[in-house]
Amino acid sequence: MATTLNDILKAAERIRPHAHRTPVITNSSLNQQVDAQVFLKCENLQKVGAFKFRGACNAVYSLSDEEAAHGVCTHSSGNHAAALALAARMRGIPAYIVMPNNAPSVKKNAVAGYGGLITFCEPTLQARESTLEQIRHDTGATVVHPYNDERVIAGQGTAALELLQDVPDLDVIIAPVGGGGLLSGTSIAATGSLTFPIIPQRVEQIVTVSEAGIIDSMKYVWERAKIIIEPSSAVAVGVLWEQKIDLSGLKIGVIISGGNVDLQKLPWQ
Amino acid sequence: MATTLNDILKAAERIRPHAHRTPVITNSSLNQQVDAQVFLKCENLQKVGAFKFRGACNAVYSLSDEEAAHGVCTHSSGNHAAALALAARMRGIPAYIVMPNNAPSVKKNAVAGYGGLITFCEPTLQARESTLEQIRHDTGATVVHPYNDERVIAGQGTAALELLQDVPDLDVIIAPVGGGGLLSGTSIAATGSLTFPIIPQRVEQIVTVSEAGIIDSMKYVWERAKIIIEPSSAVAVGVLWEQKIDLSGLKIGVIISGGNVDLQKLPWQ
Repeated sequence: MATTLNDILKAAERIRPHAHRTPVITNSSLNQQVDAQVFLKCENLQKVGAFKFRGACNAVYSLSDEEAAHGVCTHSSGNHAAALALAARMRGIPAYIVMPNNAPSVKKNAVAGYGGLITFCEPTLQARESTLEQIRHDTGATVVHPYNDERVIAGQGTAALELLQDVPDLDVIIAPVGGGGLLSGTSIAATGSLTFPIIPQRVEQIVTVSEAGIIDSMKYVWERAKIIIEPSSAVAVGVLWEQKIDLSGLKIGVIISGGNVDLQKLPWQ
Repeated sequence: MATTLNDILKAAERIRPHAHRTPVITNSSLNQQVDAQVFLKCENLQKVGAFKFRGACNAVYSLSDEEAAHGVCTHSSGNHAAALALAARMRGIPAYIVMPNNAPSVKKNAVAGYGGLITFCEPTLQARESTLEQIRHDTGATVVHPYNDERVIAGQGTAALELLQDVPDLDVIIAPVGGGGLLSGTSIAATGSLTFPIIPQRVEQIVTVSEAGIIDSMKYVWERAKIIIEPSSAVAVGVLWEQKIDLSGLKIGVIISGGNVDLQKLPWQ
């Protein structure tokens, strides 16, 4: 992977006019609960409610005018699809989104609401990939993968960059890992920073959290910090909650990756 | 009422080491929905989850050391009681809180959790006032009223002050009104500001919002802005939601007063 801190710095410049600089919030109760100083980087308050907008936005605005004119495309039924649709709409270009025909209507509506042009396919990886390839062939659109794309990784890294600008003396950053785009970007932003030499020995540790730990820490953040975080974000908080690694007394940044939750069905009810 | 902009500026200095400077967030979907540029001043992210901490904190730190040594007292079963208890604990002095014996256990626990010394009484205004007077007499504690107190009003005004520092060219500020402390402080911060001459003709309009408008706008803010706001904060958003007054195209600050909600019982479920 060739993504560097310099790519992240350029991405930060590129997306600045389009993305939110999200706040970093602290909560005394949470600090007491986990015996550490916790700084929540609120990507749930990012556009489309997730850090995914950063990567999609960086990819869309990295294109030349000629490339951009053909649009962008991806297969995704999640936050990346919504993020790519919105970034494309901002630039005034089409976004072709391949979704499985069994995707929940709330996700279809989100993508359509941001102006994404949806093509449905059978719910198999093969169908998704072949449908995407057909669209790419027909339109000349640029494929933007949800995470396996350097422009996307650089974009995701801007969240950690901003967090470190706000709190330069963090000891540790915790980020959830799905495809790995956020964690890759975060690692590059952190290890590349002169202000942050402590990380290499620490950040590349993968920790798992129990279902109960996810739900408990999710509810705690809602109740105490008053922000809506999704279960995948609660995973990062859950690392502290379950004290899976000894971080007591340290200054810890947590990337709250998103806040897209069905408010009719909450996991503690 | 003798509270002035200067009192608010002093209050801001006084509470700075103790209170959060809360973020101001924006949301494109909300802007489209209400046809205005909305800036949410997130006092739900304030300590104890409500703007009330500002006033209580200003009152507690306005006391001389001799006054402070006797503690503070109030009768309240809500956010003011929790706020006063926390501010007193920060200064290392006692807070005597009179609560009706039928107060919900969640409220008792909140006050006790912040170290408040609770005295229960019969649930009548007369019992609350006479119990408070007895405590004041016995301890020499200073009474801090939830809103009818200049130190409290000046403290509450610091929320609008910060909002105007962040977004100086607002056309309107909307704040919910209960006892009136927040609205008074907000008006003084706004009308006293040289950057904000437009308000006097506009802000002193009282608007009511329907129950349905409160619930709909509360759920919308949770879903789209990803922050937890309580119904009294949704009242302020509801003014825009129901378009009770014509604010289209304007830049509008909304004081989100708090985020203390029972997550087991949501009004849309």
